[in-house]
Amino acid sequence: MTRNVTMAAATAGHAEGGTTLNAFDNALLAAGIGNINLMKVSSIVPPEVSIIELPKLKPGALVPTAYASITSERPGETITAAVGYALPDDPGKNGVIMEFHGSGTRVAAEEKIQQMLEEAFRVRGEVIHEMRVFAVDHTVERIGCALAAITLLAEEDLA
Amino acid sequence: MTRNVTMAAATAGHAEGGTTLNAFDNALLAAGIGNINLMKVSSIVPPEVSIIELPKLKPGALVPTAYASITSERPGETITAAVGYALPDDPGKNGVIMEFHGSGTRVAAEEKIQQMLEEAFRVRGEVIHEMRVFAVDHTVERIGCALAAITLLAEEDLA
Amino acid sequence: MTRNVTMAAATAGHAEGGTTLNAFDNALLAAGIGNINLMKVSSIVPPEVSIIELPKLKPGALVPTAYASITSERPGETITAAVGYALPDDPGKNGVIMEFHGSGTRVAAEEKIQQMLEEAFRVRGEVIHEMRVFAVDHTVERIGCALAAITLLAEEDLA
Repeated sequence: MTRNVTMAAATAGHAEGGTTLNAFDNALLAAGIGNINLMKVSSIVPPEVSIIELPKLKPGALVPTAYASITSERPGETITAAVGYALPDDPGKNGVIMEFHGSGTRVAAEEKIQQMLEEAFRVRGEVIHEMRVFAVDHTVERIGCALAAITLLAEEDLA
Repeated sequence: MTRNVTMAAATAGHAEGGTTLNAFDNALLAAGIGNINLMKVSSIVPPEVSIIELPKLKPGALVPTAYASITSERPGETITAAVGYALPDDPGKNGVIMEFHGSGTRVAAEEKIQQMLEEAFRVRGEVIHEMRVFAVDHTVERIGCALAAITLLAEEDLA
Repeated sequence: MTRNVTMAAATAGHAEGGTTLNAFDNALLAAGIGNINLMKVSSIVPPEVSIIELPKLKPGALVPTAYASITSERPGETITAAVGYALPDDPGKNGVIMEFHGSGTRVAAEEKIQQMLEEAFRVRGEVIHEMRVFAVDHTVERIGCALAAITLLAEEDLA
């Protein structure tokens, strides 16, 4: 891409909705990314990227995003979505993002993300310099969604 | 993206094929978007975008597209895909796209899209200025596909 | 896109992993595309594109990629992923990419890809000038992944 990714920001949200797609839309809004276009990517933090708090984004922006989401229509079920990133010692090398979604609470999801990141660095022969996990869970009332995302941002995405 | 989305165009198509992937390819061709690269997005119409008739597109263009599709190998089954968009009163704000696919005819799908768009605007506190739904259904002979799409276009995508 | 796709490169890989997502990550690494961001596309080779050997790619690059992948947690199962492209006589026209994943060995997958490409050209009224299929299979030990991909590359993706 001529797109120049210089920032990454993580977020998570959960919500109910009238349909599963509305629950997803509402969870995106709760996470602060409901008015942009997510383009799903697998799942690398480019080198030299600044990790920032989610900024205000330009409506409609096309934003490459690694995300996990789950919707459920079973009242009482607890659902979880989690993402995490790990960055290497050498800032000239890329980081890795891992995603997880499933039933259950966020504690198990956070542990799973951590293990996946550790394996990803082990196989690359790299040492983790910094690791963060973002997870959210949601207990379904009628139709619910949990979602966690890491957006890969360029200057032109900022509002 | 440095991509500058200035137009959006909706389309729909349905077809049979020798395999499910060929049925999908044939439905894309029937819809006039069989020779471009769809990049799936969720699902916002950027502000100030012109809604146009699907133009002739440059072969191989990488086009962010919100779409719904369904394939079926059950002869006699009727399958439907639908997309719709709603735009707000304020042209400086973004619109929303919703997608649906499933069994059944297009009438129920169109109604569902409309309800989803109404919820999406209600939760955003916006009023719908314009809403359009595009749906297609297909009764399977052997292997069929129905698909509906809204492409987010830039000048450089035009043939 | 202002992205200018001038090259396409195919690759395939397979691996075990501690989780299905790590198996996928490890298969990407085995295929030489584990440190880039794949953006899934369907599935056209733009006109005038050079087919090249997979080059060294810039870590974190956002690369539109047509791919097939499958993971399995059933020890002993053989899984296959395959992609293929066909190019037309007229280099000013686009080629087509087809993907397949499933159980079984690569021989059946390769044949299926070939048949899908032949149908895709028949319906377009084009003659195949060149066709190549890339397939890989993997017999699962604990948690395995097979993946095959065609990357659509621009100059700025090269390391």
